[in-house]
Amino acid sequence: MLIDTPSVERLIEALRRLPGIGKRSAERLALYLLGAPEEEARFISEAIRSARERITTCRMCCNLTEADPCPVCSDPRRDAGTICVVEQPAGALAIERANTYRGLYHVLHGALNPLEGIGPSELRIGPLMKRLESGTVAEVIIATNATAEGEATAMYLSKQISKLDIAVTRIAHGVPMGSGLEFADDVTLSHAIQGRTRLHD
Amino acid sequence: MLIDTPSVERLIEALRRLPGIGKRSAERLALYLLGAPEEEARFISEAIRSARERITTCRMCCNLTEADPCPVCSDPRRDAGTICVVEQPAGALAIERANTYRGLYHVLHGALNPLEGIGPSELRIGPLMKRLESGTVAEVIIATNATAEGEATAMYLSKQISKLDIAVTRIAHGVPMGSGLEFADDVTLSHAIQGRTRLHD
Repeated sequence: MLIDTPSVERLIEALRRLPGIGKRSAERLALYLLGAPEEEARFISEAIRSARERITTCRMCCNLTEADPCPVCSDPRRDAGTICVVEQPAGALAIERANTYRGLYHVLHGALNPLEGIGPSELRIGPLMKRLESGTVAEVIIATNATAEGEATAMYLSKQISKLDIAVTRIAHGVPMGSGLEFADDVTLSHAIQGRTRLHD
Repeated sequence: MLIDTPSVERLIEALRRLPGIGKRSAERLALYLLGAPEEEARFISEAIRSARERITTCRMCCNLTEADPCPVCSDPRRDAGTICVVEQPAGALAIERANTYRGLYHVLHGALNPLEGIGPSELRIGPLMKRLESGTVAEVIIATNATAEGEATAMYLSKQISKLDIAVTRIAHGVPMGSGLEFADDVTLSHAIQGRTRLHD
């Protein structure tokens, strides 16, 4: 059967590596790619190749970018006194979309994970410290994920930065806006209660 | 922002063409492909290209295949007297997986859809009729989809084949096995009742 042929097996294996794509989805995508017009499949294959060729990481914030330094780092209207630290480019993108943050970013490209052999030197922590030592930064907002690895990374960075005269803050965690308490998990609820803020003082 | 750069925009546009991939999923996949190790992205890009190069359609059944004729058509243990007609390779794959059918297939690569300009000559109906005229086929099982287009195609084929001395059957449609009546839609239920079969006669 088609699905057992080596080149299709390899295609399915390749597609399965994509996040959120399981076995059945990979097969469905493979059959689509094989059945679509030739130029359609080539367009996708080429788009992956050429994007990879053009995209690099910003020498300042380590975010993915086509221009180096990236549009955010080279925008004079951005507040260079604030750096928001995220694990991945997707995090910076999500914050940009929210359209309220006007500072700069720093992308770590991961989080500390000793079990997987990811220590501080595997992340872009060195370039971050160098930026901070330059003296223009007044606040670092740590926006690593609310996971064990993200929290460990936040603690580590906080300790590193404490040597410098820079405020270190952590984004708030709690019940998502627009969502009811009944949909939040226990850990989120505990966090939401512990992190409660005063409405009047 | 990264997402606005031309090569990333093109990558996202390319990924959005895949079935079941919306805007957000395409962005997530694009960020993954850009952040993954270089060889990972190349592996995927190459797998698409090389599968397309190697895969052709079987001269007999028009299914996608690496060898021509395909493994099913060239398997002497398959019953060459029965042909199951499907719209797409995915349909043949699904039936193969069910592991009860031992006949051959014929893949139309679509269904009749006059509004989209898809008439009989756009489908692989000519090659099917040629196979049937060879005289070895006793039954054609029409397994086109249970959609307006699939039904129209089934009607059309049935009429075409009626000129030959070949039995034409249609796969059964009804309530899915293991599912309750309350989950079936009205059309399926009407069909299930109209298509009822006698348990004792």
